[in-house]
Amino acid sequence: MRKLTSWISYKEDCDFSIYNIPFGIFSTKNKSPRLGIAIGDKVLDLAGVAKQGFFDKIKIDKKVFSQNTLNDFISTGKPKTKKVRLTLQKLLSGKSSALQDFPKLFHNQSAVKMHLPVAIGDYTDFYSSIEHATNVGMMFRDPANALLPNWRHIPVGYHGRSSSIIVSGENIKRPKGQLMMKDAKRPVYKPSQRVDFELEMGFIIGKDSALGKPVSIEKAEDHIFGLALFNDWSARDIQKWEYVPLGPFLGKNFASSLSPWIVTLEALDPFRVQGPKQKPAVQPYLKYSGLQNYDINLDVSITPNKGSENIVSHSNFKFMYWNMIQQLAHHTVNGCNVRVGDLMASGTISGKDVNSYGSMLEIAWAGSKPITLNDGTQRKFINDNDTVTMRGYAEKEGVRVGFGEVKAKILPSD
Amino acid sequence: MRKLTSWISYKEDCDFSIYNIPFGIFSTKNKSPRLGIAIGDKVLDLAGVAKQGFFDKIKIDKKVFSQNTLNDFISTGKPKTKKVRLTLQKLLSGKSSALQDFPKLFHNQSAVKMHLPVAIGDYTDFYSSIEHATNVGMMFRDPANALLPNWRHIPVGYHGRSSSIIVSGENIKRPKGQLMMKDAKRPVYKPSQRVDFELEMGFIIGKDSALGKPVSIEKAEDHIFGLALFNDWSARDIQKWEYVPLGPFLGKNFASSLSPWIVTLEALDPFRVQGPKQKPAVQPYLKYSGLQNYDINLDVSITPNKGSENIVSHSNFKFMYWNMIQQLAHHTVNGCNVRVGDLMASGTISGKDVNSYGSMLEIAWAGSKPITLNDGTQRKFINDNDTVTMRGYAEKEGVRVGFGEVKAKILPSD
Repeated sequence: MRKLTSWISYKEDCDFSIYNIPFGIFSTKNKSPRLGIAIGDKVLDLAGVAKQGFFDKIKIDKKVFSQNTLNDFISTGKPKTKKVRLTLQKLLSGKSSALQDFPKLFHNQSAVKMHLPVAIGDYTDFYSSIEHATNVGMMFRDPANALLPNWRHIPVGYHGRSSSIIVSGENIKRPKGQLMMKDAKRPVYKPSQRVDFELEMGFIIGKDSALGKPVSIEKAEDHIFGLALFNDWSARDIQKWEYVPLGPFLGKNFASSLSPWIVTLEALDPFRVQGPKQKPAVQPYLKYSGLQNYDINLDVSITPNKGSENIVSHSNFKFMYWNMIQQLAHHTVNGCNVRVGDLMASGTISGKDVNSYGSMLEIAWAGSKPITLNDGTQRKFINDNDTVTMRGYAEKEGVRVGFGEVKAKILPSD
Repeated sequence: MRKLTSWISYKEDCDFSIYNIPFGIFSTKNKSPRLGIAIGDKVLDLAGVAKQGFFDKIKIDKKVFSQNTLNDFISTGKPKTKKVRLTLQKLLSGKSSALQDFPKLFHNQSAVKMHLPVAIGDYTDFYSSIEHATNVGMMFRDPANALLPNWRHIPVGYHGRSSSIIVSGENIKRPKGQLMMKDAKRPVYKPSQRVDFELEMGFIIGKDSALGKPVSIEKAEDHIFGLALFNDWSARDIQKWEYVPLGPFLGKNFASSLSPWIVTLEALDPFRVQGPKQKPAVQPYLKYSGLQNYDINLDVSITPNKGSENIVSHSNFKFMYWNMIQQLAHHTVNGCNVRVGDLMASGTISGKDVNSYGSMLEIAWAGSKPITLNDGTQRKFINDNDTVTMRGYAEKEGVRVGFGEVKAKILPSD
């Protein structure tokens, strides 16, 4: 890897190194939402950078940098968005830069408000970790045949709700709903007793496809702009009662949390690794070549109200059985179209051992093995006023590219 | 009902009577998409009506009538959209009107192109016909316990795909996908052999709700702008292999067809009827008062290529076990928010007897009872180059309010 340094100083373990340059939407006290990139602990105002003419050579419409979502920027296409990223990397590299003459374009991350980075048209959630699907199957179905017959043949997925996807930092009221309590004859209506996180990564569609035209696995990468951390909040008890036969609904759609910075596929390129071997062999439309998994370390923590942080899971995106290009090829093989800004999430990312499970359902094994936090309290699921934080980063040969965090606090029901 | 006549002449059985005034998006050869209403066999250009000052008293932003979706118009709120409809009804009533001075604002419906009327944020499909759910349960599960335990307690629903919702008249390629053939050990990849229609009605959300704030059943009607016909195309064989455990996905999202005219709740008010008795009693948040079902006659036909039309179902929207305000109250009871333009569909609308079943799956009982068309050919499902047309209208005391039609042809796979 080419060695890069920046005239912006940051710590060695900073997620937003010169190698990263992730895109997001931020606002400041006096100015409305617009595009920015993260570098060190700063946000660089891209509307301002564009105004000063730094992107003039790219022939990209300056207006896209003043929007309150990334959609128009992403829609300009990878050839342009790649050039914008490389231009910024160059402007932030080395010991001096023309950008140093514009200190007002830099804001402290702690001083800005981050917004949902994209207007999400459709959101799809996959179920692509074999360890997670196996754990769930063992708990709720047959331990000897935990994986359903279709699981190794198709990247199982389902449609989720876009309207309730929120950006990191927005808190969530504990959902109420119908629960069928053990041995009860009728459901009751009350706050969920089993609010859970799901550790996921989401990718953002970067290029439209036409209805009736599948995106081949060879072309799938062209349609992926970048990735973010995603917490697919779940109310296990609501879900359990409602999900047969048409799938999860109110058990999921009360909220999902997305991290504010979209890390491009280009920034993640050095961290590609081989995925798990797929047996039996997949259908030809799902056959891929090259390294299509990504080595991204993932952590989840629970922080009780006024308490300290407890890491409850160390997982890794590389564990995924089905990779992103397989998910996208499958999603469109029937002719379903995708649009810029659509979000596709991985499903819970669990590894082989309990320390790497991506949900409390698995960590505390459906409530049968509560965990003890460092304040002595126990958790089977998420309590009121607990904050759940997920973090992710890739690192190799001294190069670090991270996602920052996605966090939210569960507030009591009304 | 107050007796109204129009100076625009139309036949007695016209769906777009003076009592209706449905809203849609149309374009003409020389002019881009904009708002219109249907009256008789004409479309009235609302951008033009606004320009001439006919809505000035309503204090509604004229720009909303020049958009290519109804969303901004709907977002102005019911007090205003109701006034627009009543103003138009007045301008089109009686024997003369100031509008007669502007013949260029009227276009023949046959000469305009209709567009998808709303930008649909999220699309939810319910499963609210007890006859349909029972039929499906009898075919695929236990005939003695056809309804699942949750069915009478919650309006079961799931999230669908917005991107592939198309307007009536757009044709659809037969989807390909993984099918698990009878007695096979491995799935095959091929065109679906079981493409089916689902006769549904959809309602369009007319008012946003906030995340974390349920819409009470008393207020649900305020959030419904109007209704349209909806064909929730399904590939039964793709769906069968994929849907466990997370619900339908590629078996549905290759396309869904929406009729172009949104009939307002106000226009449908005279056709309210009592819904089926709900036993056991529903949870308090689902208890409703008044007449919440609508007596809307629904027909489905199949027209083979170069053949004549065959009506294969006569159903009625009044059969729904769960009504729209219950669906919306349930959808938001966990705090899930809704946005203007969201679409919520009823699920297949079946009645008690086979002539009123709303899908080929039920009409031909999973292929075991093929039907014969008037050209002598048989159908278990939909063949290539068949056109499926759905029509709907309400009628009472000589007053007719209709939806026109939603149709699409199934083209062969590539």
